[in-house]
Amino acid sequence: MAPGGAGDTPEVALSGPSMTSRKSVTGGGKRDEELILPINSSLSVTLSQDQLKTTTTAAISTDFTEDRIWLNGREEDVGQPRLQACLREIRRLARKRRGAGDGDSPPLSLSYKVHVASVNNFPTAAGLASSAAGYACLAYALARVYRVEGDLSEVARRGSGSACRSLYGGFVEWQMGEQADGKDSIARQLAPEGHWPQLRVLVLVVSAERKPTGSTVGMQTSVETSALLKFRAESVVPARMREMARCIQDRDFQRFAQLTMKDSNQFHATCLDTFPPISYLNDTSRRIIQLVHAFNAYCGQTKVAYTFDAGPNAVVFTLEDTVAEFVAAVKHSFPPAANGDRFLKGLPVTPVPLSDELKAALAGDPTPGGVQYVIVTQVGPGPQVLDDPHAHLLGSDGLPKQAS
Amino acid sequence: MAPGGAGDTPEVALSGPSMTSRKSVTGGGKRDEELILPINSSLSVTLSQDQLKTTTTAAISTDFTEDRIWLNGREEDVGQPRLQACLREIRRLARKRRGAGDGDSPPLSLSYKVHVASVNNFPTAAGLASSAAGYACLAYALARVYRVEGDLSEVARRGSGSACRSLYGGFVEWQMGEQADGKDSIARQLAPEGHWPQLRVLVLVVSAERKPTGSTVGMQTSVETSALLKFRAESVVPARMREMARCIQDRDFQRFAQLTMKDSNQFHATCLDTFPPISYLNDTSRRIIQLVHAFNAYCGQTKVAYTFDAGPNAVVFTLEDTVAEFVAAVKHSFPPAANGDRFLKGLPVTPVPLSDELKAALAGDPTPGGVQYVIVTQVGPGPQVLDDPHAHLLGSDGLPKQAS
Repeated sequence: MAPGGAGDTPEVALSGPSMTSRKSVTGGGKRDEELILPINSSLSVTLSQDQLKTTTTAAISTDFTEDRIWLNGREEDVGQPRLQACLREIRRLARKRRGAGDGDSPPLSLSYKVHVASVNNFPTAAGLASSAAGYACLAYALARVYRVEGDLSEVARRGSGSACRSLYGGFVEWQMGEQADGKDSIARQLAPEGHWPQLRVLVLVVSAERKPTGSTVGMQTSVETSALLKFRAESVVPARMREMARCIQDRDFQRFAQLTMKDSNQFHATCLDTFPPISYLNDTSRRIIQLVHAFNAYCGQTKVAYTFDAGPNAVVFTLEDTVAEFVAAVKHSFPPAANGDRFLKGLPVTPVPLSDELKAALAGDPTPGGVQYVIVTQVGPGPQVLDDPHAHLLGSDGLPKQAS
Repeated sequence: MAPGGAGDTPEVALSGPSMTSRKSVTGGGKRDEELILPINSSLSVTLSQDQLKTTTTAAISTDFTEDRIWLNGREEDVGQPRLQACLREIRRLARKRRGAGDGDSPPLSLSYKVHVASVNNFPTAAGLASSAAGYACLAYALARVYRVEGDLSEVARRGSGSACRSLYGGFVEWQMGEQADGKDSIARQLAPEGHWPQLRVLVLVVSAERKPTGSTVGMQTSVETSALLKFRAESVVPARMREMARCIQDRDFQRFAQLTMKDSNQFHATCLDTFPPISYLNDTSRRIIQLVHAFNAYCGQTKVAYTFDAGPNAVVFTLEDTVAEFVAAVKHSFPPAANGDRFLKGLPVTPVPLSDELKAALAGDPTPGGVQYVIVTQVGPGPQVLDDPHAHLLGSDGLPKQAS
């Protein structure tokens, strides 16, 4: 499947890693918009690729006359600044490596143009961290074709800040760093994907519409206008990061869950304190929040937690033994519309009846169709190389394969 | 209209002051829930009684065997703690005054029971400050029957903190005070009702439903759980109070409007930072926020401001010359349902056509019925005594008159 495949192609590299979506459990704004440096450290959980993934193929060839990119089958402008920053950074690292005189590597022309194709199996830009997964996968694929090794945090970060976390599986911290050049603003794995096998993640998809405010624009306005965001970054997040790391280490679900909810709420509070204000949550998001608190109150302990990114979809954390009952509560509060049989995606869930007591405890009238569907998933690994050529997205001509 | 009217009634006093609703432009939580002392100073505008008012009648008589109260025609439990605190406080002041040996006043038995009737001409508990208006009016009426003079801040405050501001007309500050006993936590008029004659206030009624979280319970949880609320009270509000007072003094609408919106957003941000989180705003509230920002962006200056209390209804400030165009924009974004002829209440508004440019600038699809109706009003005076006996709510038997 070598692009061009002609004899005048001194170097062809191919890579098709899949990447995860991921879910922030703490989040914030940026201190440097150019270098994409955050105003606080943050923590996320990388999700299984069985349910949510980005697949990317990159190829370089002398036959290519220009850099080109296709997202979900449609060619996009390769000149967009963040994409250019990624390409510049990976080529810089490749040049640096060649300058270091690594005798093992074959000659590689850095002037070769690159073709990239990438697809998500979940809605783009609906607050499901599509850009984080996409740019992490891109950084990983580019590193393979340009034979760059070592930490790729900086490459991924230039595309989308949170993408650096998605370079690793399991529980990942993005250390904000202190240096002005951002060299110490890197991702680090806190615990591997197998660390907490009982943990489950449910994505409650509220809306597949594109969000009105992109998270990048929104974040920048927040940093400029919200006094609460500054206070949060300096005075609240550092202690929370330490405690969250401890909760993960100890698999302390109750405390993990409470911190996750509080931090999500506080993040959205700073969005509202932005001027003009930003609201990612809608009425359905708020009904989900009420549902989770009512469910926990009924249980007499914190068995479920929500967190929201830059969109109305909820990501819910719970343990394996609570999934079935919580899913029944979601179905009760948001009766599935016509697509009842496709309401649950991902890991299998055994249907259980909902007790009358729990039904009564879930305040409010049911909202049919409020939640479109639920993806049941778990913690997953970082980028994986796809060896099967059928999974690659570019054909031997270096162009996207026709949809089969 | 003396209750009982019998010769064994040594003292009968009647009073029927109307009171205003009012609109906070800065708000916050409480530092002492028993004394109702706030964690920050605040500022509000008292609205005209032509559109929004509470009417209250109080009477005392030896014929009355117990304290009783009727709200909007229905008898309520007179034993509720806040009502009892008001009654205790007014009787304490009356006793103190008699103890001071005021020879002018006729003898007055403090053991006489009181009957109170009160009605609002706007929905109760829907975030339109009904308890503020109600308790201010009650304090004023009780002061008349018990012949108490001087500042009634403490009496009103015991009923509902913000009620102390509603004791005055125009622009009113509630100084948080510093003393533990709350004696210096009082209301003060910053500017009288005639100070800024061009100012108009539009109440966009989104929902007449009772709010799920009462503002008192919500506030207390916020004080206990929100780190952002504490920061706001200590580090943001004091400077904003000073600047807001200056804006009002100078009639600087643009700055007044921006501060009002920022402060409303920050207040609701601290509600969201509460655990469990509190959301008074709903999707329609957020559409109104977007509408105001789009309108201002189209105008190239801040001509309209929103503020939200503990509910989804918007209170909009603007100047006289902008009312007609903004009302047209509201009608465009929220096409009135069946009650089209009663969509606008209060001050008359001349219909104007909306330019195609402005229509295009108002992003988003129209939401029919999202706003139930709009009350157009302006700044108004404090409590007024109603001399007309027909306006009094208690009959000569001391019981509520039959609805005529």
